[in-house]
Amino acid sequence: MPIAKGYAATDASKPLVPFTFERREPNDDDVVIDIKFSGICHSDIHQARNEWGNSTYPMVPGHEIAGVVTAVGSKVTQFKVGDRVGVGCFVDSCVHCESRNVDLEQYMPGVVPTYNGFEADGVTPTYGGYSNTITVKEGYVLSIPDNLPLDKAAPLLCAGITLYSPLVHWKAGPGKKVAIVGMGGLGHMGVKIGAALGAEITVLSQSLSKKDDGIAFGAKDYYATADKETFKKLAGTFDLIICTVGTEIDWNAYLNLLKIDGALVLVGLPENPVPVHAFSLVMGRRSLAGSSIGSIKETQEMLDFCGKHNITPEIEIIDIQQVNEAYERVIKSDVRYRFVIDIASLDKA
Amino acid sequence: MPIAKGYAATDASKPLVPFTFERREPNDDDVVIDIKFSGICHSDIHQARNEWGNSTYPMVPGHEIAGVVTAVGSKVTQFKVGDRVGVGCFVDSCVHCESRNVDLEQYMPGVVPTYNGFEADGVTPTYGGYSNTITVKEGYVLSIPDNLPLDKAAPLLCAGITLYSPLVHWKAGPGKKVAIVGMGGLGHMGVKIGAALGAEITVLSQSLSKKDDGIAFGAKDYYATADKETFKKLAGTFDLIICTVGTEIDWNAYLNLLKIDGALVLVGLPENPVPVHAFSLVMGRRSLAGSSIGSIKETQEMLDFCGKHNITPEIEIIDIQQVNEAYERVIKSDVRYRFVIDIASLDKA
Repeated sequence: MPIAKGYAATDASKPLVPFTFERREPNDDDVVIDIKFSGICHSDIHQARNEWGNSTYPMVPGHEIAGVVTAVGSKVTQFKVGDRVGVGCFVDSCVHCESRNVDLEQYMPGVVPTYNGFEADGVTPTYGGYSNTITVKEGYVLSIPDNLPLDKAAPLLCAGITLYSPLVHWKAGPGKKVAIVGMGGLGHMGVKIGAALGAEITVLSQSLSKKDDGIAFGAKDYYATADKETFKKLAGTFDLIICTVGTEIDWNAYLNLLKIDGALVLVGLPENPVPVHAFSLVMGRRSLAGSSIGSIKETQEMLDFCGKHNITPEIEIIDIQQVNEAYERVIKSDVRYRFVIDIASLDKA
Repeated sequence: MPIAKGYAATDASKPLVPFTFERREPNDDDVVIDIKFSGICHSDIHQARNEWGNSTYPMVPGHEIAGVVTAVGSKVTQFKVGDRVGVGCFVDSCVHCESRNVDLEQYMPGVVPTYNGFEADGVTPTYGGYSNTITVKEGYVLSIPDNLPLDKAAPLLCAGITLYSPLVHWKAGPGKKVAIVGMGGLGHMGVKIGAALGAEITVLSQSLSKKDDGIAFGAKDYYATADKETFKKLAGTFDLIICTVGTEIDWNAYLNLLKIDGALVLVGLPENPVPVHAFSLVMGRRSLAGSSIGSIKETQEMLDFCGKHNITPEIEIIDIQQVNEAYERVIKSDVRYRFVIDIASLDKA
């Protein structure tokens, strides 16, 4: 079995440490990838620390993977050695059911997460991108456009698709007013992608500290949510609001910023339920909805769109030895805007 | 000024009593209607008793009005004396704004409710259908199809459109599985209209006490929500759930009954907010939405649809002297399925 080197969480309360493990022997339909870069997603931290209560250890996090193909199985037709590829949040799904057919496999119970999950056999743990190699079924490997550098492409695999999918599904485009709540790793991708789709983007962030960045990324307006006047001034303004904030905030205040038929779409998962007033929904035919990443087909479409429009996240590259420190900084929102691990640093140890 | 006789609430804590008041002199664009029947909506009770905190007195409730035209202004072109007509929940709106153009005037701040509101002048109170005559602008008068009796047509003006609008907007039709939560005045109309639209209808009611009726009205299935097994068995089943229950219930349990991309649409207004888990929305791209009555254009479309399919509510006709007793029975859900006041009974006093 091929040996991989990486970093793993060994339990919920300890820092990540170097970890060596086996990858499976490649099957006929597998692509073997030399991982070059791996983004750090806030959900890596939630899972490494068992904040969602479903963690298994040892855990090698990482689902924003960019690398180069080093081998392909005999039945692989879409990829060849040397191709620049990505892997996102899942590496298998229940391929036979209805939802696969409509390209919504990310919502299926049979989806196999890239890490902290089990292969379709139900017993083999999956290990993610904080490592130097991964073996993935061809159908779950994405092609990275030539003009996108691998380091910057990595966060597109989760942060990028998490915003692209709802923006496209809820028809962000010319003539539409779209608000992005939160200006972090997810939010700043929402601004860039939403603007490229032609929508008029407003950022709603706690303070104005990142306003210059927001405008530079393509936002037309930028408001502080700490200012109560914001909610009066913007009442009834937006066709779509995408909320990237994963903590409990008052959704009712944001619902009131929607036009008739507008939608407030959650892409973060607050731990506790949030009280919702029916009035805000009924008096305007508004929706409170949710969205989770995207299908493989849609993720490829997103990568191609980002290639065409030359959209990449703002990143800070770190060595893998800095991962625990980076986690603390993500929690404090002290990153502009996404950490990406340079996997070559594994050899520095 | 024309004199009207009716019943009014004089304050939040007293029963309705006989009340005589003036209607306006008809304008060029007005239709004068001899009211024959007026339905009793649960919102009449909420407002008569100031349960929404916005009541003004004296209040003549009633926004499910069916009658016959007795006079028309010189500029009225769509109606003539003798026409069978209806009036619903509003009698004017802000006609110049964007939303009127897209036929969503029911959601506009400028909408003038049929009672417990003020005319566009902001000072003249509106009085509703528990009375023998009403004068309404032509643009807010509906035509009742010849085959629908006036007594049974009355509840279509609120209960009918409240269900028709979301059923059509969220595309209930052949191949769609739709659940109606609650089997009261609203719910039973949802079953009849939803079935006529071609959707497969399931009723989710607290008990099975009205199951035979539900099936007779067109439902395919009928489940008791008091039975926990219902929520296990029906997980992931519905494209659309319309919740007619205006009390606080656990929406999360119902969200889990939706398919991917399904919507739970509220048409009732619980007094207090309900805690919502983001998980139920995000993991399935589901929506929690709201809907309120319908536009005038859509209300006419609904009446024509009901005429074509011969759809009418189940009603119990009462004399207006029984209105206070009827209110108590509505609160106890002791009506199958809508009370309708025979306005001719006013002369019995």
